Parts: sequence; C-alpha cells; structure tokens
Amino acid sequence: MIHIELQVELNYEIDAQGADFVFNIHAAQTPSQAISAESLLLSQSVVPHLHTDQATGNRYMRVRALPGELKLKYAATVDLAHHRADPAELGEVPVYRLPPEVIGYIYPSRYCQSDRLVRLAINEFGKLRQGYGRVQAIRDWVQSRVTFTPNSSNSSTSAIETLIERVGVCRDFAHLMIALCRAVNVPARFATGTDYGADPALGPPDFQAYVEVYLGDRWYIFDPSGTAIPMGFVRFGTGRDAADVAFATIFGGVRSHAPVIRASAVEDTVRGFVLPHHCREALSTDSGPQVVSGV
Amino acid sequence: MIHIELQVELNYEIDAQGADFVFNIHAAQTPSQAISAESLLLSQSVVPHLHTDQATGNRYMRVRALPGELKLKYAATVDLAHHRADPAELGEVPVYRLPPEVIGYIYPSRYCQSDRLVRLAINEFGKLRQGYGRVQAIRDWVQSRVTFTPNSSNSSTSAIETLIERVGVCRDFAHLMIALCRAVNVPARFATGTDYGADPALGPPDFQAYVEVYLGDRWYIFDPSGTAIPMGFVRFGTGRDAADVAFATIFGGVRSHAPVIRASAVEDTVRGFVLPHHCREALSTDSGPQVVSGV
Amino acid sequence: MIHIELQVELNYEIDAQGADFVFNIHAAQTPSQAISAESLLLSQSVVPHLHTDQATGNRYMRVRALPGELKLKYAATVDLAHHRADPAELGEVPVYRLPPEVIGYIYPSRYCQSDRLVRLAINEFGKLRQGYGRVQAIRDWVQSRVTFTPNSSNSSTSAIETLIERVGVCRDFAHLMIALCRAVNVPARFATGTDYGADPALGPPDFQAYVEVYLGDRWYIFDPSGTAIPMGFVRFGTGRDAADVAFATIFGGVRSHAPVIRASAVEDTVRGFVLPHHCREALSTDSGPQVVSGV
Amino acid sequence: MIHIELQVELNYEIDAQGADFVFNIHAAQTPSQAISAESLLLSQSVVPHLHTDQATGNRYMRVRALPGELKLKYAATVDLAHHRADPAELGEVPVYRLPPEVIGYIYPSRYCQSDRLVRLAINEFGKLRQGYGRVQAIRDWVQSRVTFTPNSSNSSTSAIETLIERVGVCRDFAHLMIALCRAVNVPARFATGTDYGADPALGPPDFQAYVEVYLGDRWYIFDPSGTAIPMGFVRFGTGRDAADVAFATIFGGVRSHAPVIRASAVEDTVRGFVLPHHCREALSTDSGPQVVSGV
Repeated sequence: MIHIELQVELNYEIDAQGADFVFNIHAAQTPSQAISAESLLLSQSVVPHLHTDQATGNRYMRVRALPGELKLKYAATVDLAHHRADPAELGEVPVYRLPPEVIGYIYPSRYCQSDRLVRLAINEFGKLRQGYGRVQAIRDWVQSRVTFTPNSSNSSTSAIETLIERVGVCRDFAHLMIALCRAVNVPARFATGTDYGADPALGPPDFQAYVEVYLGDRWYIFDPSGTAIPMGFVRFGTGRDAADVAFATIFGGVRSHAPVIRASAVEDTVRGFVLPHHCREALSTDSGPQVVSGV
Repeated sequence: MIHIELQVELNYEIDAQGADFVFNIHAAQTPSQAISAESLLLSQSVVPHLHTDQATGNRYMRVRALPGELKLKYAATVDLAHHRADPAELGEVPVYRLPPEVIGYIYPSRYCQSDRLVRLAINEFGKLRQGYGRVQAIRDWVQSRVTFTPNSSNSSTSAIETLIERVGVCRDFAHLMIALCRAVNVPARFATGTDYGADPALGPPDFQAYVEVYLGDRWYIFDPSGTAIPMGFVRFGTGRDAADVAFATIFGGVRSHAPVIRASAVEDTVRGFVLPHHCREALSTDSGPQVVSGV
Repeated sequence: MIHIELQVELNYEIDAQGADFVFNIHAAQTPSQAISAESLLLSQSVVPHLHTDQATGNRYMRVRALPGELKLKYAATVDLAHHRADPAELGEVPVYRLPPEVIGYIYPSRYCQSDRLVRLAINEFGKLRQGYGRVQAIRDWVQSRVTFTPNSSNSSTSAIETLIERVGVCRDFAHLMIALCRAVNVPARFATGTDYGADPALGPPDFQAYVEVYLGDRWYIFDPSGTAIPMGFVRFGTGRDAADVAFATIFGGVRSHAPVIRASAVEDTVRGFVLPHHCREALSTDSGPQVVSGV
Repeated sequence: MIHIELQVELNYEIDAQGADFVFNIHAAQTPSQAISAESLLLSQSVVPHLHTDQATGNRYMRVRALPGELKLKYAATVDLAHHRADPAELGEVPVYRLPPEVIGYIYPSRYCQSDRLVRLAINEFGKLRQGYGRVQAIRDWVQSRVTFTPNSSNSSTSAIETLIERVGVCRDFAHLMIALCRAVNVPARFATGTDYGADPALGPPDFQAYVEVYLGDRWYIFDPSGTAIPMGFVRFGTGRDAADVAFATIFGGVRSHAPVIRASAVEDTVRGFVLPHHCREALSTDSGPQVVSGV
C-alpha cells in the first residue's frame, strides 16, 4: 500500500470584475484510492460549490472569486491500494465488447485528433500483437520521439502539433499517446493528478498529466513522459483530454502564480506502507466493471 | 403538435473480415418528443445491442456485421410538442449558475476549438446584449459568411477550417456556431436528426446536424445553415460535436451508399397536427432542469 | 541518351467572363535537356505571352482565354543527356558554401513547412552520414510511410498534412521529402514534368511532380513516390514548391478536364538512344554552377 | 526628402561548434533610397560574404561565426526620396498585364496561405471598387481585427493563425494583409527594415515588417500594424514573406539578445530634409518597371 501526504497551494490575483473558477484538484475517491483526511482552505469568504460527476467520479469545485488575492490550500492523506495485473494477461477488448461507457474513449477529442492518425497508427502499430505490449509500444514510441521541454507548448497545443514538433510537457505526451491508442481502437483517457518521483532537474513538483488505457476489464495507468514513478500518482480526474479536466478553468481576468505542490510518501512496514517504485506489473486505481456499470 | 412519419434506409457492403457499427439513428425519447411506433429491420441475422446513454438520452445501437450486404430500415412515428418561449425572455446563464451537467458544453471539443476563438468572438459579439439575441447574431454571422456547398468538407473538417475556408455543409455550420458560442461562454451542443423542409435543389432529404444552445433553463434549437424548418427536426442525438453522435461509426472495411430518408409531416386539425413552419418563438425539445438533474 | 516524343493535351470550358491562365507546360531547355522540335496549338485565336524566368529557366505562357472551349496541344521532341554521378561521391554542401542562388531552397515554403520539422528530421536523420545516402534515406522514409492514393489530397494539402495523414499523390510525396531535406539544411526544390514508366494501374499517364536536391555542385533528381523511372522524366519547371510551378494557374471560372499525356521513348542503338531504366547512379539535368552563376 | 541616421547593434553568444548566419540588415540601395555612408563592424575576425540578389536587390551577408561572443554593428546614413502618388489614381493591375517578375507575388507562400482565403476575401472585399482604396480597406480590416501584443506569436505563426487568434506583432499583421491581397489577385510582398515613430509604450525601437503592394506601375508601402510612420521606414529587404527576408537566419546553437536599434531623422530645411510624417499620398521606394525589367 502507498500512503501519501499531499498538499496543493494555489495563488491568484483577480481583477476588479471578479472571476469564476472551476477547479479539479480534489483527490478522486475510488475503491483503490481512499482519502483518510482532507482539508480545503480558501483565503476569501466565498462558498465553493462541489460537484462529483457520476460518470467519472471527478470532483469539481466552483468558486466565484472576489477581486484581489485568492489563495487556496488543499491537503489530503491518500491511501493507494492499486489493482495489479500481469501485463502478459491483459488483452485489448474488441470494439463490439467494449462497455458502453468506455466506447466514447475511442473517439477523437479536442487535443487528441485520432481520426487523422489512423493510417499512421496502423502503419506503425498495426502488425504488433494486440494487448498490453502494443500499448506499451505506443508509449515507448511517443517517449522516444518527443523531447520533454518545459514551456515548449501552450494550452492550445494538441497531439497533431506534438507529433510534428516533437517537443512538449507531460500533457502533450499524454495527448499524443491517447490519440495513437484511439487510432487503433484502443480506449484511452487523460488523467490528472500529482507527480511523484520526477527528477528535480525538470523543475519543482507539479501537477501531472498521464494516460489510462482500457485493457481487460479496467483502466490501467501509463506514463508516456517517463519522468515519474506512476505508483505514486494521486489521481484527481479523468476525461477525454485536458479540456475536461483542467486543474483550473478560469473565467475572468486573473494572474496566476506557479502552484506549490508537495506529495510525500510514507514508508512504514508495520502499517504496510511501501514507497512508490517502478514495477513491471500493470497498475490500476480503477475498480473494474462492476462499479463502472453501477453508475 | 407536429406529427412526423420517419423512414431511414441505410445500405452497406462489408468486406470479408466483417465490420462493427455504432449507429445513432433512433429517435430520442424526451417529454417533448414521443415515439408512438417504431420498427427496425436488419438484413443480416445479427443481434444488435441497444444502449441508451443516461446523460444525453442518445440511443446507440451496436451491430457486428457479417461480410456482404447490410441493409437497415428504421421507421418511427414521432410526435413533437415543442416547448416554446419568447426570445426576449431568454437570457444567458452566468458560468457560476450553470448546472453541472451543462458546464462541459462551454469547453472546446474535437471539431469546435473554441479556445482559439476567444478574441475573435469577443471582438465580434462581446458588446452585444447577452441573451437569445446574441446567440441569434452568432447564428446570422455564421450563416452569412459560410456558403452551403455539398461535398465541400470531410469528416476531419473542424470549425477552424470552416472559419477560414468559408464553405461547408450543415455539420460545418453547426461546428462553427458552437465554437463561437462557447468562446463567449455560452453552452452549445451538436444535435443530429432528420431534416425537414430543405430546398430540394440542395439534394435529396438527408440527415441534419444543428445546434442546441442553453438559455434560461433549457436547450433551444438553432439551425445555422438556414436550409430547413427547425420545427420539423426529429432529434436522434446530442453531444459535444460530431465525434459523439455520428449517425454511423464504422470499424472495418465498408462501402457506404447514400442514405434514403423520408420525413413527412401530417396535417390534421382534428388531432391538432400542424405542419412544421418557421416561427419567431424559440423552440426546445428539452424538458428543462428537473429531468436533467434527475439523471 | 534518352529521346522522348512528348504530347500534352489540355481541355477547358471557360465561363462567360473569360479567364486568365498561366501555364508551365513547356519543356525546359537546359544543357542536359535539348528540345529538337516543338509545337503549340491553341483552339482560340488568342496571343499567348511567353516568358522564361532567368533564375530557374521555367517557361511560362500566359493566355487570356475567351468564353467557351479552350483546347491546348503541346508537342515536343526532347533529348536528355543526363549528368551522371557516383552517389558515393556526392556530398552535402555546408550552408556557408552554398551558392547564393541555392540558399533560398533551405527555407520553408507554402507546402514545405520545414521550420516545424527540424526536431523530427534531426531525430530521424541527424545521425546518418551526410551525403547522397542520407537524402536517399529521407526519400525511403517518405516512400515507406506514405501510401500513394489517387484523389486523396487537394491543392491546399501540405507536407504537414501528408506527414500526419500518410497518404497522397506524387505532389505530396515531393512536398514532404523537400520539407524534411530542408529541415536538415539540405537544399531541395520541387520539379514538375511528365511521368515515365508508371504502373498503368495507378491511372493514365499524367504530369509528374518530383524532387531535386542540391548535392556536390548541382541538383540531382529523386522520385519519392517511387512510381516511375526518373530517367524518363521531361522537366517543365522547378520552384520552391507547387505554388511556383503549377501546370496551370487559373484566374476565373473554368471547368477542367483531365489532361491527356503521351511520353514515348525511342530506342535506337544507331543514334545512341536507349530506353529510360532504373540505375544506381545519381542523375541530373542541371548543368552545374558555371551556368547557374551566369544568371 | 527624409534623411535618417541608422544604427543597428546585434549580440549573440555562439556554442562551441560555431554557427552560420545569413543576415539581411543592410539598407537596400534603390533610386529612392540612397546610402550616403555605411559601416559594418564585426567583433570576430571573420570574413563576411556579401551578396546582392539581382531580382530583389536584397543585400545578404553570410558570416561563419566562431564560438563565443559575436557583436555586429551596422550604421548607415540613408536618404529617402519617395515616389509619391495620388491614391485615387492608383489602380489594380489585371493578372494578364502583371509584369512577369511580379506575378509570383499573387501566389501563396509559407506564412501567407492565400489559396485558403479566396472565399473569405471575395466575401469581404470582392464588391469594393478595385484600386488603392480596396487595398486600404484590406489594411484597415486587418488592423481593426488584430490586436498588437508583444510576444504573442512565434516564428512559425502564419496568416491563418493570425486570422483565427486575432493577435500578433508587425510580422503577423503583414502576413495576414499579404495573404488577403493575394487572395483577390493583388500582388503583395513582405518588406523589412527599421521602424520609425512607433509609440515607445510598444517597446524600444525595433526592426519593422510591413507590406508593399503592386499598384499602377510599382510597389507601394502599407503599414498594417498602424504603429509607425511609414515615411520613416528604411528598407532592408523584400520577399514573399518572412521566410525570405529574416533579419538573421541562424544555423547552429546560438543565444540571441534583443537588437539595439536607433533610427533618427534629421530636420534641415536648408538641405530639404523634413521629418517623416503621416500623409495621405501613396508612398513608394520602388523605381518602377523600367528598372525592374532590367534585371
């Protein structure tokens, strides 16, 4: 089991007209990811509206902020008991057997224009044996072709541009991997949360975007940027792509400061807490079909 | 009340490997759109899987087709009792008061890259009085700038291209109008169904793509291509854009023939059936918030 | 020596307002490509204006056509005495030693956006030994990744789209190869002319677009679509890309019919005429620097 | 007459491998723009290679720089005796009467994809009376729709993106205006040089990109960004777009500092020197057809 103490601090300065925010920075609650303690502090005395999306479990918080400074502090204690599987036993699911709530994730989306990449994906991956290994090959293809470079992309950068320009941040690696998976009819979705284990040379701890792919009977985690230790990811949200699960969607004139994020894992053999580490098993924080179909 | 007899006939030739289809050609059932009779015939003895999406009410049918010919005949008797409203009384809803299930429709999507059009939309529409009139102005802007031209676009054409190239079919008009609405934070979605009243010079009766915009407390119909009589539209599905509600999403090698569509309205004063006609009131087939929030 | 009898027939129907044409369908005259006989017939009694561009040798013909039918018949007897070189001895020229009139061909152009492909090209070709072999590797990369498919592209399709969509005609193969060459600072230009030796299954004889790359002291021919026998190409024009050397640039309302093209090679051992054939030597119809610098 | 003292200072730090530069920062010599004094200092003892392009008069300087610091100081005394014309008398030239060396400037180029804007341009400008006034209307359209914002674009930004995003710097205004002119068959080219009279609030004096349009019998100056006094522009180069006439095209690893530019006009009634000022006449530094055709 992984035990993580998480702290997120966000700072904004808001114009005279005020601004609306939709945050997605609460840790998701799933059978594999339990929240044992949680707190949220807002520097303004405004009432946030919380909403958990039934289909995804994403926890959105809307805030109608007043002019001036807005400071937000979120802290959570998160216990992760990943579902683990042997990659060799994880097959792709044929389109006709995909659960209805999964099928939308093979369609193209704003930043993952898979419809334009079908020939490329078949040319590159069409002959590989289907299953976890093929998805891993897509991940490796993306990782080896794109160079991680801070500030090399912006909020309108999509998989097509990343494929051309060959540079990006974790968000861009994720969009390209998702687009390529969908182009061979493998459901893939965008996941957000907090980073763990990244090389400090890449910058201070940050939010993380990664990929979940539907294999066998649930969604498995992939980290196409290869910068982190996926076992330490705390999941906030999942969606079609970054349009669905931005950490903060802002309406109004706002200046943003860089987020301050701390995610520290606790090692404690008595309580069974190990540190996140690279492993060859497939990892999922998803609970499988029985819960999904219960939505 | 509008009473429509609808017939849809689709013809495909399927390669030796077979093919999977996801159809969205069943008329939606809403408080405003009742199906009094319905039939579906498939030329192959395959079992279709039907699924109604809880969030949208879209009725999807998956078919695992065998090699050879596939013919599909759908017929429905549809009664439409539109919700009508005075345009002057329909206001835009501020972001902070949008229902949670509506807010996703101000985000960009595959074919509606509203994130790139914010400056343009504010420049063109930012000073107009908010409400139905502003949405109508967006619709008029699109209609007057884009030329309806059969076969001028393809399945990867998006709002950005339509804005540049200034040519398209109903799908393209809809994507551009949706993108512009979202760029000023007005929720807009893509609706599909059958056409009514279009000039025969534009071709035989066809599927129709149009727009629904969230104003006041529900979704209202707009026809940006201006080719039809919206009161006669039978709705199949709604989604973020064409990626969500293609009439047929096809996996495999398939040759498609043009669909054959008949939608005839019945006039019968005794039963209260009138013919679809242009009107100045705002029309909705949506039932308003109580039902949406019940999902 | 290659001896080719060439015939080109073009047919247009011109609207009531008339139309202007700029044709580039005259065979270029170079030290390696001699025109021993030539004729041009226009079905309208209009006076064409001929102009040979000093920098490229392209022969342009402007015609101000009247309403109605316009038929154009061009015939030429062309003798090709290619400059041949051993690929192993053809090196790339460092930027600082490129002739001034060549350097523009490492810059991006309308359909060859090499500026966006620098990382990709360095990633794929940066470690290869510079010279003819590297250019051949770029050619092979393009040929193996793009599928030749008639009518799969249009006049606005550029190298970026071809790289994404992986489908095209000879023009698209050429644009992508040119963009990749320029991205590693190898001068490359677009060449047009007539096809030779293409598989009849790909359609009737047609115009051909191919690539010339500057290596050693002159421009060498490459055929990235791999559909033809380059030794049989008759060159019309060269330019940055298709924007410079369209066969016909048309101003006005015109309906075009498919061109009718015949290019037959004559075999005659007495006169030293051999048939075009694949060969391992590098071929050029360019006369080298002394002439170029004389412009 | 305008008399300008010009100083340009450029600073680079060059990696261990050295780097090649192609500069275009020498003032052009034309009958309207005379250079009475000129000096160039390079901080490295390398021999620059100068080349004047026959077709455009652009003066290119190639430098093979050594590792370390490279400082370049260019100074020139420039006398401008503009050709002036009454806008009301400047007509557009029909395609069939365009000089051969001008016709290329109605074709699309890397950053000016006029081929995609034909419908838009005809829709917006097709009904206006042809001539200087129509070009001025295109200029005004661009200026009123695009917002000048430093650092809002990059070296791959093209007219299409500027049309969508509605933001840019002088280079972007120029590309969009050029693309729209070409889309209605009006020859337009990209001109570079030094700014004059810009509001200091927009930043320190800088290079300037502007537009020249062929009307009557020569190229006239337009300033689509509207930030400067065109009469004070010193011209360096002209080309299809920024790809042809970058101030510095750099090959190799180089860090660039912001250029330091001074352009001061001298007022001296005795010698007939007036200060640059806004005027209603059309201005040209081009000498008209007799010289151009002499190339």
